[in-house]
Amino acid sequence: MKQTVRASTKKVPGGLKVDTKARSFTLICDEPTDSGGTDEGMTPVEALLGSLGSCMTIAAFILAGQKSIILKDFSVDIEGDLDPDGFLGINEDVRKGFSEIRLSIQLVADGDPSEVEAFARFVESRCPVGDTLSGGVPITCQSITVRQ
Amino acid sequence: MKQTVRASTKKVPGGLKVDTKARSFTLICDEPTDSGGTDEGMTPVEALLGSLGSCMTIAAFILAGQKSIILKDFSVDIEGDLDPDGFLGINEDVRKGFSEIRLSIQLVADGDPSEVEAFARFVESRCPVGDTLSGGVPITCQSITVRQ
Repeated sequence: MKQTVRASTKKVPGGLKVDTKARSFTLICDEPTDSGGTDEGMTPVEALLGSLGSCMTIAAFILAGQKSIILKDFSVDIEGDLDPDGFLGINEDVRKGFSEIRLSIQLVADGDPSEVEAFARFVESRCPVGDTLSGGVPITCQSITVRQ
Repeated sequence: MKQTVRASTKKVPGGLKVDTKARSFTLICDEPTDSGGTDEGMTPVEALLGSLGSCMTIAAFILAGQKSIILKDFSVDIEGDLDPDGFLGINEDVRKGFSEIRLSIQLVADGDPSEVEAFARFVESRCPVGDTLSGGVPITCQSITVRQ
């Protein structure tokens, strides 16, 4: 059944720090000082990569039960290529977002290593954040409210 | 110039809690208790929406200078539709990731409201996380390491 997931972001006065609230939880994003921030949190693009690795990890532990895999540990190194010239408008031919994301997955699990590796690929195919990123998602701006 | 952005995720023993490190910063993701977690952090899909709102906000403050907009505040409410039946394999016709993401943007800025609204749409078009999500990005699994 379709669910609606929500978050709200609010600028913290001064610098570039942004506060995200989702239910009772908070995520602080910021930029390094050489990008005009005060370096008090990970950047939004780092948080995006973290959401991908976290989603794969949680998916792995939930899906291990379905596949009768005894999963003991799961970790992911994630890296993505981004060229700020796209965002800044310095080069209109450069993509504004990530051009590629790469994963390195480490698992500790009982069982035949080839079956465990197949399980990791199954997890990758099921991960909600991975599916959103690899397939893309329509983003609709419902309202823009301007105050002075 | 192309940059490589990095994050690493590691399962916390017990429950479904996952620790993301990016440089010196940490993001904790978890699931609510009814999904098998211990509800000690936002979910990865909430973090994904937070990274989008945070990226738009930081983009707005960086780009305001280029457009001579006196931007005083910027906040975003983000919601996304997700059906867990896709992830869980209950219904193969259901998408595993978000099917739609919706934004409501609130700005406080000096100037003609229609120009400020046009600026908000410009920010949306430039946002790196928004561009990644709306256009999709290739995700490559470089390695899977299995230990027992």
